[in-house]
Amino acid sequence: MEKRGILLVVSGFSGAGKGTLMKELLHRYGNYALSVSATTRSPREGEAEGREYFFKTREEFEQMIAESKLIEYACYVGNYYGTPKAYVEQKLSEGRDVILEIEIQGARKVKEQFPDTVLLFVSPPSAEELKHRLTKRGTESPEVIESRLGRAVQEAEGIEDYDYFVINDDLDACVEYVHQIVQCEHSRTSRCEERIENIRRELKAFSK
Amino acid sequence: MEKRGILLVVSGFSGAGKGTLMKELLHRYGNYALSVSATTRSPREGEAEGREYFFKTREEFEQMIAESKLIEYACYVGNYYGTPKAYVEQKLSEGRDVILEIEIQGARKVKEQFPDTVLLFVSPPSAEELKHRLTKRGTESPEVIESRLGRAVQEAEGIEDYDYFVINDDLDACVEYVHQIVQCEHSRTSRCEERIENIRRELKAFSK
Repeated sequence: MEKRGILLVVSGFSGAGKGTLMKELLHRYGNYALSVSATTRSPREGEAEGREYFFKTREEFEQMIAESKLIEYACYVGNYYGTPKAYVEQKLSEGRDVILEIEIQGARKVKEQFPDTVLLFVSPPSAEELKHRLTKRGTESPEVIESRLGRAVQEAEGIEDYDYFVINDDLDACVEYVHQIVQCEHSRTSRCEERIENIRRELKAFSK
Repeated sequence: MEKRGILLVVSGFSGAGKGTLMKELLHRYGNYALSVSATTRSPREGEAEGREYFFKTREEFEQMIAESKLIEYACYVGNYYGTPKAYVEQKLSEGRDVILEIEIQGARKVKEQFPDTVLLFVSPPSAEELKHRLTKRGTESPEVIESRLGRAVQEAEGIEDYDYFVINDDLDACVEYVHQIVQCEHSRTSRCEERIENIRRELKAFSK
């Protein structure tokens, strides 16, 4: 495969529509792969090993940590969740663009280890729209909505660490736009070294 | 105007099709403006002040240099050519994306003064294709073609200073691709500071 894939980290406020956005990217275009996380939590009904998660015992997971086999990991409600490096590496070297949904602390760790990663922050067009989307679901209590908004305030503090700030107003347009960002990033000179080297060599041969 | 325009520098090998590319960008999309250079050479038949060039006397030009009114300038065959800062600034602040065709030394100077500039290097798909395009014109002597190829070898050494390396294989596709690059660059977090600040302020107000 001539061209290495791009690692795309997607973060954003709860209610920004990240999930649908990523699903549509995978559905519409052939070149994406979703990063599959490792976790110590038990599989739920319908979840398959290597599809939703790589299911690990606590010992296995801690060994992966010890052997630096995770790009990043975190602990939620007593269970580990992390991003296995080997899986991401494999997909990238196959030329697939790998999407990784993750929060800001994880995003920073990914960028440290893969400086070439493209960090994308997705936001609804306004805070009002965000509140509207959270309320519209109708499934959350006012307290939960308040806590999500409070969380959004914190998340918003870190947006400058991202490369792109994308407004998800119209889903269709947003999916296409994010796809374009990835396509354009493929032409960054830092990702075209081989191509540039080739044309240099050819030019030198011709001009002799 | 909410959004400041982007300064897009276009460089590339002679025969890469930069001229046609830029003409098509201006023709197809409404948001571009071409940077107009200042020069001390005399106007030719059909050239208009402020359209092809700003025509200056040697004294006027040297005063512009002295007063730092040029982003960059160079001397060819006894005449000065330069990029007036005020014109570019005006168009950018009107929200227009300004295209500037310039060679690598100039591109570097522009980036120093406007670090936000997007530097684009345009190349034909191969050195063979480049030679073919130069020969096809049929107007140049073998010596001129050789000298252009030699020049291309030198230019190729600086490609890493550019942000994007774009292959002009199919003109239509290339025009659209470059336009997409500019559109995507508008969503760089560094260019969305106002928007990010707004959503932060709104979120804080809501979560109180």
